[in-house]
Amino acid sequence: MAKVAFIGGGSFGTALAIALAQKKIQISIWARDEKVVNDININKRNSKYLKEVKLPEGISAYTNMRDAIEGADVVVLGTPSHVIKEVSEKLKDIINKDAIVVNIAKGIEQNSLKRLSQVIQEELPNNKVVVLSGPSHAEEVAVNIPTTLVSSSFDEESAKVIQDLFMTDRIRVYTNTDLVGVEIGGAVKNIIALAAGILDGIGYGDNTKAALMTRGMTEIARVGMRMGGKPETFYGLTGMGDLIVTCTSMHSRNRRAGILIGKGYTMEEASKEVGMVVEGMKACKAFHLLSEKLNEDMPITKTLYYVLFENKNLDEAVHELMTRDKKQEIY
Amino acid sequence: MAKVAFIGGGSFGTALAIALAQKKIQISIWARDEKVVNDININKRNSKYLKEVKLPEGISAYTNMRDAIEGADVVVLGTPSHVIKEVSEKLKDIINKDAIVVNIAKGIEQNSLKRLSQVIQEELPNNKVVVLSGPSHAEEVAVNIPTTLVSSSFDEESAKVIQDLFMTDRIRVYTNTDLVGVEIGGAVKNIIALAAGILDGIGYGDNTKAALMTRGMTEIARVGMRMGGKPETFYGLTGMGDLIVTCTSMHSRNRRAGILIGKGYTMEEASKEVGMVVEGMKACKAFHLLSEKLNEDMPITKTLYYVLFENKNLDEAVHELMTRDKKQEIY
Repeated sequence: MAKVAFIGGGSFGTALAIALAQKKIQISIWARDEKVVNDININKRNSKYLKEVKLPEGISAYTNMRDAIEGADVVVLGTPSHVIKEVSEKLKDIINKDAIVVNIAKGIEQNSLKRLSQVIQEELPNNKVVVLSGPSHAEEVAVNIPTTLVSSSFDEESAKVIQDLFMTDRIRVYTNTDLVGVEIGGAVKNIIALAAGILDGIGYGDNTKAALMTRGMTEIARVGMRMGGKPETFYGLTGMGDLIVTCTSMHSRNRRAGILIGKGYTMEEASKEVGMVVEGMKACKAFHLLSEKLNEDMPITKTLYYVLFENKNLDEAVHELMTRDKKQEIY
Repeated sequence: MAKVAFIGGGSFGTALAIALAQKKIQISIWARDEKVVNDININKRNSKYLKEVKLPEGISAYTNMRDAIEGADVVVLGTPSHVIKEVSEKLKDIINKDAIVVNIAKGIEQNSLKRLSQVIQEELPNNKVVVLSGPSHAEEVAVNIPTTLVSSSFDEESAKVIQDLFMTDRIRVYTNTDLVGVEIGGAVKNIIALAAGILDGIGYGDNTKAALMTRGMTEIARVGMRMGGKPETFYGLTGMGDLIVTCTSMHSRNRRAGILIGKGYTMEEASKEVGMVVEGMKACKAFHLLSEKLNEDMPITKTLYYVLFENKNLDEAVHELMTRDKKQEIY
């Protein structure tokens, strides 16, 4: 592998860039923010997103996208989900036709409800698209804590190239050709993490949160299967694994936003305080619409939607979820 | 419901007794330890197992088992797994024939590898047996934190009676007739919690633990299905839900024992320090044997077995789990 370009100077992209640079692969990072670019080039740090970490040799940053991707065999997209389309459009005329595009953002396109790889593929029809997902907080990847990832694509060969690329003695990469399952699981888990954070913020216990996460998994798997994903994927690293890490770690901005909402902040106040994009809020709206369209029950997503967007009272919401009709667990 | 008897004065039984007493159901508790019996009767506390909690009216404790179960419609077994057989034998001649027996212990019988409900049913062939399981730390149930449980039996009617009995506005009970899946999930999750605790003790991160829990779930589901359980059960409250709560909460004695082992304690020192039975150690041995008998791969259980019982070096064990051949996630 000659060169890997990262589009976006965020925390997860930077963490993966560090891992690759340690393997002596040439890395370029494009970032919109000139301060981030200068920080990387001059101070060998990305202080805005990964405070404590010193970058290894071999990473250069650019504000010009063409310079960043020149000669890159792999282009990694690490921008928030809502700018994926815009970035892909910009890449269209300048990307190497043989380059593999790797998406590391998680979410679903608002309104169109398209998976992010669909959005990318429509703009870049000649490039292979791979999604890299799994339980992987950037703060831990950046300091070599053992982490697992899944490389997923309809094109198995490309998935394997990306598996080889990111495999180190600290990062274990699996492949999975169920791209739909990988992307849906990664998007929906942010909704459940937001809800789990709310329970933490109110002051409920570990029992309550485990129940929410488990019933949340059922909800993810049900709607995901309707969309064509496989159950094994939802219960794998990119679904259940990522759900667990997002619901239980303080590194998760979705969980942190939820905690604030549980303490009485509005959605806007919580977003501002967290200071980064809270994907779960957008995903909640999108999947609530989708579940109505598909006529598929998503009780936690629906309840969260009313809390976030319709000012539903929190105590009432939790009480309703706990006192629904008594049921069989599997139906 | 006239009367419910609890056999064993441990934390989870006492917590459930409190919930039922709050519903004005008459409760008796049998305990071997006279101090516990006196504490309950005189001080209205079970200080040994639930320090902070005051018991409500309507709970009486006994050292004589016959006195405790007299007139009981439901007998709840809350002893450690290794005394289930002995207790069931004692109940044989004195239990009301129509009484439903509810098991709340989690584990598998050493050597015979029988599920605990099998052991009970063999001793008490005329009584219906129900298992009550799910993500439910006693410390939280005792203080009315919202909790979910699953009432499971081959006899659906009995499962429903127990569902009704334990349902409150803070405890939500589901039914599930997949008794095999419920019991296997409840036993194996203690193995994974012990391993998760070890990772915490060594100082690995949230990414690493989420990966272990997810791959652990795959292992539970694979062996559990071979034994006749359903996948939906393993990924439900009694499997995944209980796994999550056990791996992430400091209330879990299995996790606490694991943390100590990760810090360099031997298995014996860790058990002594935790001060209660660590079911995961017994389950690890039993399921390692079982997996060899069934020729079913359980890599985490196997690795833990060698760490616990064969003095395998911890760093080496983690390194091996992380650097196995690269793989597809689903196979």
